[in-house]
Amino acid sequence: MSAARPIITFITDFGLADAYVAEMKASVLRHCPDATLVDITHQIAPQDVLAGSIALERALSAFMGGTIHVAVVDPGVGTDRKLLVALIHGQTVLAPDNGLITWAYRRLNPVSTQELLWRPTEGVSKTFHGRDILAPAAGLIGAGKGELVPTRRLGSPVLLEVDIARSLDDAQVIHIDHFGNLTTNVPQELLTPDTYVREIGKVRATYSDVEIGEPVALVGSSGLLEIAVRNQYAATQLDLAVGSKVFFRS
Amino acid sequence: MSAARPIITFITDFGLADAYVAEMKASVLRHCPDATLVDITHQIAPQDVLAGSIALERALSAFMGGTIHVAVVDPGVGTDRKLLVALIHGQTVLAPDNGLITWAYRRLNPVSTQELLWRPTEGVSKTFHGRDILAPAAGLIGAGKGELVPTRRLGSPVLLEVDIARSLDDAQVIHIDHFGNLTTNVPQELLTPDTYVREIGKVRATYSDVEIGEPVALVGSSGLLEIAVRNQYAATQLDLAVGSKVFFRS
Amino acid sequence: MSAARPIITFITDFGLADAYVAEMKASVLRHCPDATLVDITHQIAPQDVLAGSIALERALSAFMGGTIHVAVVDPGVGTDRKLLVALIHGQTVLAPDNGLITWAYRRLNPVSTQELLWRPTEGVSKTFHGRDILAPAAGLIGAGKGELVPTRRLGSPVLLEVDIARSLDDAQVIHIDHFGNLTTNVPQELLTPDTYVREIGKVRATYSDVEIGEPVALVGSSGLLEIAVRNQYAATQLDLAVGSKVFFRS
Repeated sequence: MSAARPIITFITDFGLADAYVAEMKASVLRHCPDATLVDITHQIAPQDVLAGSIALERALSAFMGGTIHVAVVDPGVGTDRKLLVALIHGQTVLAPDNGLITWAYRRLNPVSTQELLWRPTEGVSKTFHGRDILAPAAGLIGAGKGELVPTRRLGSPVLLEVDIARSLDDAQVIHIDHFGNLTTNVPQELLTPDTYVREIGKVRATYSDVEIGEPVALVGSSGLLEIAVRNQYAATQLDLAVGSKVFFRS
Repeated sequence: MSAARPIITFITDFGLADAYVAEMKASVLRHCPDATLVDITHQIAPQDVLAGSIALERALSAFMGGTIHVAVVDPGVGTDRKLLVALIHGQTVLAPDNGLITWAYRRLNPVSTQELLWRPTEGVSKTFHGRDILAPAAGLIGAGKGELVPTRRLGSPVLLEVDIARSLDDAQVIHIDHFGNLTTNVPQELLTPDTYVREIGKVRATYSDVEIGEPVALVGSSGLLEIAVRNQYAATQLDLAVGSKVFFRS
Repeated sequence: MSAARPIITFITDFGLADAYVAEMKASVLRHCPDATLVDITHQIAPQDVLAGSIALERALSAFMGGTIHVAVVDPGVGTDRKLLVALIHGQTVLAPDNGLITWAYRRLNPVSTQELLWRPTEGVSKTFHGRDILAPAAGLIGAGKGELVPTRRLGSPVLLEVDIARSLDDAQVIHIDHFGNLTTNVPQELLTPDTYVREIGKVRATYSDVEIGEPVALVGSSGLLEIAVRNQYAATQLDLAVGSKVFFRS
């Protein structure tokens, strides 16, 4: 097999109805025609930086060293918000410095962040830096021309307040997925065989450990406590939302 | 041109809002970095095994020998349901053994099915076998390392009851597509120039054989009888759903 | 790096719930297994040729010479509508001749159009020419076998009435994007520092030049006048739709 083709992924809040995502891919392919392009998601709710941040952490946990991730949830485009380049477990993230790096920063230390200084010599719109700066920079890095992409030290990236629970008292819902399952900020390390989620029950191994329609707490596929209702949409059934506190019984 | 890159496709009910699909792709690319990845659909309704089954049959009918299909509609993840590997017309399917193979089994004989025994040496979640077992197994097979993926004889796969109509008395709607067009289980071999679908009319060649807004029966692009309303959403207009019986007049 | 792999893109109104898009990709890969496949969008509203036309122009503006675009919004499939091959800025478009080329034709002259005569020797359905004719033709062209794809002169393609505004009196909304931002048909060349959009204000540089929730007029990422409401869904807030006239104050 020839040398592996660079993998470049995309997370945005652009939806799929417009050409915006493809325009970013064109900017990548212009510099790196051999790239394997992978969509993480484009259905982040408009300007929901927290949700983008969680998708980015999952992407980083799933992909291999060398992968480049372009994340664009960017309500501040055209303001003086910075752009950042982060190095995490051998992978590169390009994103606005607006908190999108938060969940990766919390879960995947060490994270080294730099400010992205690279700008194209012409053709930068004031409204679409994903296409005009981040994607071509990703293409250059993917093509092995990272030395053409200048950066500088960034003291600390902008971070959202959400954090990993240090104790069960900090537990809250941080994400609702397509199935209505609720991801919390509780890492499995905080759980014991006796942990009992109030109104749900003990922590089980998998969905099918309860009857269809019954609530279940388990460690989800990202290693965090998850609350579900077997084969149903838990967020509605349990009336929980992102930010809802989760309570335990000892 | 160099040797063709392996094609690996994906059918799931994961939707596109989360990183789940991309996590499966990462598992494939880890073993088979040269793969061409093709999404069939990720918008199967949650746990709708029949709809997944129909999408899988269409994928198999469209793709070429050597293609590998990963299909994950898996309400029974974590139970003792088996995983299967099917060989169909030179293509490979990896899926839970829960009926997902049904429509391919009905239409594309011969189908050889084996039980997938391969498991990774570590890191199998209890809730996401698509990412942790099926996708990496597909990557290994795509990379030409199928000998590392042990299987064993499977008597008969789990099948849903839905079947190809043997006579017009068995006719029913099996799928509603994005345009609201209704696919039935009636193969074109059962149709004659005089076949008359009750409340619709004779079987025509194409949508434009009737006026806009008029119902039309025709052989759809999968070789099955289809009922549509020209340039409108037939399922609503005709009040038909998956499972509705279709009647004929002689 | 080896010779660049051909890029083949797709615009349809097929949605993402069915296997239709993947069936087109299979038809491409059969002839051109090395292609890089890029989705522009499949969420054009059913039979909305204008919206497809705008997505196609954006794709052409973003991609590089050599790219092949397959566009299928085809309410007239099965009628005697022609198929066309257009050459635009070194890129190739394959589409029904039903107006889909309009916006590219208006904005990206010169456009050379030919009628596509190529048909496969067998297996052409009456309902899915995207899969059975356009996609395999794209695959042949992508594989460097364009000489196998016969065409002939086409006097003039079918065009929709929508056109670029020649003066501000012609201004209208032509597209609403995922964020609810309104694209108009007014090119930036018609704008001066004093242009004032009635009920919106002067033309600004970017969204953040107004407060959150305030309306803003600006040159969007396609070089056309755009009307937005910062961080909100302008189409609803301003009660504007495709076809709405835009008024100015001098």
